[in-house]
Amino acid sequence: MLAGIDLGGTQVRVALARSDGNVIASIKTKTPSLGTPQAMVDWAAAEIDRHRGREKVRSITIAAPGPIDIKRGVLVNPPNLPGWRNVPLAAMLAQATGAKVHLANDADMAGLGEFHHGAGRGTRNMVYITWSTGIGGGLIIDGKLHRGGHGTAGEVGHMIIDPNGPLDACGQRGCLEAFIGGANIARETGHTAAELFAAAAQGNRQARMMVERAARYMGFALISLTNVIDPEMFVIGGGVSRSWSMIEPTIVETLHSSPFIKPARRPRVRRARLGDRAGQIGAVEWARINQ
Amino acid sequence: MLAGIDLGGTQVRVALARSDGNVIASIKTKTPSLGTPQAMVDWAAAEIDRHRGREKVRSITIAAPGPIDIKRGVLVNPPNLPGWRNVPLAAMLAQATGAKVHLANDADMAGLGEFHHGAGRGTRNMVYITWSTGIGGGLIIDGKLHRGGHGTAGEVGHMIIDPNGPLDACGQRGCLEAFIGGANIARETGHTAAELFAAAAQGNRQARMMVERAARYMGFALISLTNVIDPEMFVIGGGVSRSWSMIEPTIVETLHSSPFIKPARRPRVRRARLGDRAGQIGAVEWARINQ
Repeated sequence: MLAGIDLGGTQVRVALARSDGNVIASIKTKTPSLGTPQAMVDWAAAEIDRHRGREKVRSITIAAPGPIDIKRGVLVNPPNLPGWRNVPLAAMLAQATGAKVHLANDADMAGLGEFHHGAGRGTRNMVYITWSTGIGGGLIIDGKLHRGGHGTAGEVGHMIIDPNGPLDACGQRGCLEAFIGGANIARETGHTAAELFAAAAQGNRQARMMVERAARYMGFALISLTNVIDPEMFVIGGGVSRSWSMIEPTIVETLHSSPFIKPARRPRVRRARLGDRAGQIGAVEWARINQ
Repeated sequence: MLAGIDLGGTQVRVALARSDGNVIASIKTKTPSLGTPQAMVDWAAAEIDRHRGREKVRSITIAAPGPIDIKRGVLVNPPNLPGWRNVPLAAMLAQATGAKVHLANDADMAGLGEFHHGAGRGTRNMVYITWSTGIGGGLIIDGKLHRGGHGTAGEVGHMIIDPNGPLDACGQRGCLEAFIGGANIARETGHTAAELFAAAAQGNRQARMMVERAARYMGFALISLTNVIDPEMFVIGGGVSRSWSMIEPTIVETLHSSPFIKPARRPRVRRARLGDRAGQIGAVEWARINQ
């Protein structure tokens, strides 16, 4: 059997699956209620043990927020898991379960999930973008997850969109996230991104303009990514994608406004399909690939 | 045997190689002196025939400037080969030689050449950038050339660096090439890029500032590419790379100025090694891979 764990700042999700990747059980709880890394590991190991029946769980992947050390399986210092510094999570869970455990980037796993079981099915080259408080992503290149030379590929939120732009929490000036990451939108407008989108939905003119500007910047990023990677599809997930009907037209219009990207090579732009389950589904898939 | 042809606006180069990729003969001539596509094909076929001895040439790749239709082997309308519109070059050369012929993007082939036999040897993920009149590139992902869903990946010159920037010949506003492509530098300054670099080398202060600005913009592009692709190395070729000692410090300094790209995951930045031969060497390699 396989298991995929999606460790987020608010929730932890565990999915148990057969060796072919078919999910048979899915459990979640609140991360803060577990408290420490060891308590999280013990909870996950107990849940896996409870649902595995008589079968042995051979391979587990933990999807976790970066920065992580994928080679050593260590959480470095994820901003949304305060206090979890240099936690050797893969080794801890391997000890608790006896399984082979991999630690992987959460956006990579969500992208892998969408590629195998969500909006990206049937493509070979796909860029997944998660647009929430921050902006992350995962690349599928020729049917495989591309993690890069140091395991940090897919950080699409940190492309420079304008070197004279605002400063992002990452320390860079004018990266995509600096312009349109949810946290930066909130800082700039004094309202959360959710409030902004709600106001725009209700017809507030200024809110609409800001939403349109945000979508336009996402469109610029897609132009750059299309020219560099030439994917068949972009899949956009994360909290902001819940307002799909408000952002999709401007994103697509901006992408199509590039005269350099001829119609025949325009990638499709799709909303993610798996919602909050993308990470755990991708983690199961990664556990299957690496079993 | 194999052959690689590099078809440029000024020169055509043919390399003949053994099946293992070892080049045994290399010939070049001026493109305009050949005149028509058929004359070029006849010349190349005759040169290949003359140097092949008793061996049969099985596989040939033609590296050509875009836009090209790699699937059908057709040159679409390359700006630096005026009059060569919709030329079915692969089919023409296949008929003249009896070999299997592939048409490929010239920057992709130069990148492949540098990866297998030049500055990029030993890496797995490498971004090649050719910086001349225009800016192009080629991506090596996990040891293989990445051409993308429509064969147009690697167009690093057309990433948006500032959506309010100048207009490029490609029709996009504020792409990397719009800022620092040789043709745009010449248009902006009234001097060719070569003149600008010569003046900077002689200590002209304004020229130095412009060169530094150009190198800084290249550095911004490398930040974006590092965050998206996470390569181990950038290899920079093309005319501008001849002024390596003038551009390298600022490019590297800009890349290293990103606090988000920690020292451990900084890609190396290297000057291309194969010079004008990169395209033909890459084309031989592609002929070998696809024989």
